[in-house]
Amino acid sequence: MGKDIATREQDYSQWYNDLIIKGNLADYSAVRGCMVIKPYGYALWENMRDVLDKKFKETGHQNAYFPLFVPKSLFEAEEKNAEGFAKECAVVTHYRLKSDPDKPGKLMVDPEAKLEEELVVRPTSEAIIWNTYKGWIQSYRDLPILVNQWANVVRWEMRTRLFLRTAEFLWQEGHTAHATAAEALIETKLMLDVYADFAENYMAMPVIKGIKTANERFAGAEETYCIEAMMQDGKALQAGTSHFLGQNFAKAFDVKFSDKENKLDYVWATSWGVSTRLIGALVMAHSDDDGLILPPKIAPIQVVIVPIFKGEEQKLALDEKVGSIVKGLKALGISVKYDDSDNQRPGWKFAEYELKGVPVRLAIGARDLENNVVEVARRDTKEKQSISLDGIELYIKNLLEEIQLNIFNRAKAFQEAHISKADSWDEFVNLLDTKAGFISAHWDGTSETEDKIKELAKATIRCIPLDNPLEDGKCILSGNPSTQRVLFARAY
Amino acid sequence: MGKDIATREQDYSQWYNDLIIKGNLADYSAVRGCMVIKPYGYALWENMRDVLDKKFKETGHQNAYFPLFVPKSLFEAEEKNAEGFAKECAVVTHYRLKSDPDKPGKLMVDPEAKLEEELVVRPTSEAIIWNTYKGWIQSYRDLPILVNQWANVVRWEMRTRLFLRTAEFLWQEGHTAHATAAEALIETKLMLDVYADFAENYMAMPVIKGIKTANERFAGAEETYCIEAMMQDGKALQAGTSHFLGQNFAKAFDVKFSDKENKLDYVWATSWGVSTRLIGALVMAHSDDDGLILPPKIAPIQVVIVPIFKGEEQKLALDEKVGSIVKGLKALGISVKYDDSDNQRPGWKFAEYELKGVPVRLAIGARDLENNVVEVARRDTKEKQSISLDGIELYIKNLLEEIQLNIFNRAKAFQEAHISKADSWDEFVNLLDTKAGFISAHWDGTSETEDKIKELAKATIRCIPLDNPLEDGKCILSGNPSTQRVLFARAY
Repeated sequence: MGKDIATREQDYSQWYNDLIIKGNLADYSAVRGCMVIKPYGYALWENMRDVLDKKFKETGHQNAYFPLFVPKSLFEAEEKNAEGFAKECAVVTHYRLKSDPDKPGKLMVDPEAKLEEELVVRPTSEAIIWNTYKGWIQSYRDLPILVNQWANVVRWEMRTRLFLRTAEFLWQEGHTAHATAAEALIETKLMLDVYADFAENYMAMPVIKGIKTANERFAGAEETYCIEAMMQDGKALQAGTSHFLGQNFAKAFDVKFSDKENKLDYVWATSWGVSTRLIGALVMAHSDDDGLILPPKIAPIQVVIVPIFKGEEQKLALDEKVGSIVKGLKALGISVKYDDSDNQRPGWKFAEYELKGVPVRLAIGARDLENNVVEVARRDTKEKQSISLDGIELYIKNLLEEIQLNIFNRAKAFQEAHISKADSWDEFVNLLDTKAGFISAHWDGTSETEDKIKELAKATIRCIPLDNPLEDGKCILSGNPSTQRVLFARAY
Repeated sequence: MGKDIATREQDYSQWYNDLIIKGNLADYSAVRGCMVIKPYGYALWENMRDVLDKKFKETGHQNAYFPLFVPKSLFEAEEKNAEGFAKECAVVTHYRLKSDPDKPGKLMVDPEAKLEEELVVRPTSEAIIWNTYKGWIQSYRDLPILVNQWANVVRWEMRTRLFLRTAEFLWQEGHTAHATAAEALIETKLMLDVYADFAENYMAMPVIKGIKTANERFAGAEETYCIEAMMQDGKALQAGTSHFLGQNFAKAFDVKFSDKENKLDYVWATSWGVSTRLIGALVMAHSDDDGLILPPKIAPIQVVIVPIFKGEEQKLALDEKVGSIVKGLKALGISVKYDDSDNQRPGWKFAEYELKGVPVRLAIGARDLENNVVEVARRDTKEKQSISLDGIELYIKNLLEEIQLNIFNRAKAFQEAHISKADSWDEFVNLLDTKAGFISAHWDGTSETEDKIKELAKATIRCIPLDNPLEDGKCILSGNPSTQRVLFARAY
């Protein structure tokens, strides 16, 4: 391979990093744990964001923007939430730099510009938002509030990985306020469905919808719903969460409303979010040893056309024909790039667009033109075919749909083949060590057992699937009775 | 006035704040100098952002994302830039909170989690971006780099005002890298033109394109181009800037490229930005004592329809007719809201949408339905007319275009009527105190004179207009010879 990418078998983790860096999605930065999202990676994020944003608006949500900083006194108001995030907070303590008298040309923090109250850089915005909602909500007429925010957040993680776990990341966070618990729960589940629909039908990434155990719940939530995806190494990746927050934040920030009977009650809340982490999930769900494989529905470039020619005359003839193909594809809403740059050979370009995961590549030369055909290469299967230029635009439109479906089906088949049942501790440990994937097993429902399994086997309960059948059994560790299986896995 | 808004004459500054708060654009927050952008204000920002983003992409730019934090050692690398922003930097010094042993349930900054190097929350991103570009640029083939970023930035301003000057604000910042000074200058001017086009043709806000004096230049720039707008109190508001940065940042971060002859040279740079400040400009450029006046092209709601009825039967008949109007308007790409909520009277709704600056209001009752007409009210002129329902959709489409134009023409006439010439110091001071607006006057070209005028008259040189005619004259303060007039004003 001229691309110099590690294979999955050689070094899965290096393979992932190679795809991100060499696929031009992101770059390391000078700031510990923070990344630079490069134009190609950001274009991917824009496509994902636009689809999600449309879905949020279609379900009645509006965007807003709240401050980056959370005063410490607000941050600590909801105790569990504060406790959950305190250990990873970037804190602003000063508001000015000054010339360093000891080092000419250098700056130092001005000790006289110390803030009276420290500001936490938001790791999540429940606190600042519920403090704001207090001023917006008096009566049931002010409810529901259905607000989403696209923003950057900071969590000072000790071990970081591009996209998967970075100190700063981009995300959206929905924060809704409701008059009843039932309505808030409906919202929680609705947004989980929006996420699952997005993951499966746009990212082509099958997910399992479920509920987190108390141990794995969002700090400050009553219930955390999640979608879990399986990566090609069999590990789980939490791809999105939707939290039913009960009245916890309303109580912490004293947000009450008067109902139709003029009785005062605390407001019910939800929050839900997905982040640039999804890009990491996307990469690990589909790609191969030649590079990225991007689903057509969110790929920044859906079709690339590479001309093969000798001399100006051939080039001009190709330009004309390709021009009309490009026009036809664009008219069908397909994003297309004609790469006629003369500083690289066609073979180099083929490898480059393979690496970048462009779903369809067309190659066309002088003889193709004579024969009225074009070579069409699919990124997902690497099949190549010579296709007639008549009606090529519609052919490609259909092909893109087929690729989208194929990528999903392939990932779905992989997922199904890698969920195993374990009915004893030995079987469980053996499976974990020998077979990639999730394990469906009985658990006694206690946090103690869950902790112990995590300690012994480095596997966590990813979720209790929503469509779980009830079934009598015995906990794989404690042997105590259990009424349903849960999904275990090692996770990102 | 039921709306309880200060009039411009009573208290211009209070009028502005009332429009922002009561028009539901933004809210104060618990964080000093930071605001909450409410859904209606954010929808306006989204519309502005989308137009700009499209223009950036049409001119060959791509979006990317760089870290929020700038390590102090990078921040101080370009000395002038660092000096310019050092006094207003929020600084992260710690990365963890812990339980306060003296105050149960409270948190404190963990003194053991002090960063080795402090992180500046970006006030602008030249430093972190040029440090990144160093890794991206080796040869002329890597140039130009045409990148834009949509982001939040923080400048610790002592006196803040909603949208106009907030500690945190949203903006876009373009950062481009070029092989030649000439190319960078072309880019600088191109983006100024993009801003001017956006301000005039979308925000309906006439601007004057010009160059800043050395005193008013961006810290680290060789030349700052700007667009200046005139507010209704005659004060100037800098609405956008585009900087030619020369090789300053390339030198500070050692970014060199080899040209076609294999010679090494430093890269040439530009940066350019507009921010949520534009919303403040928009409000002050057009609104009146009844509320906001938003230009149709960026208004979140272009048309509102208010039904007037007694009883369910009338309501049903109206619903049907309005349904078809809504459908027809949407088909023309017009955003429309049918406000049939029953908790407020029509008169209240009229005032509410006036306050919110919705360009066109339709009111329709049972008798209108019989007569096949609808009452159409324009927000800009407050004219009302009864218009036939036949072809109402096209009528409204044309009306929106007329309103867009009228708002611009009105602001343009105001601007032209409020640029005065002063040929002596007395005339200058007298004009400043008695007539709102800009003053065109001769200046000797020295920073000393400029400083002195600022000190004596609280007016600054807003710009040297790009289309300035040359003309011999004498500086209004020093009496020294001058070859052109410049524009003075008091400014936001």
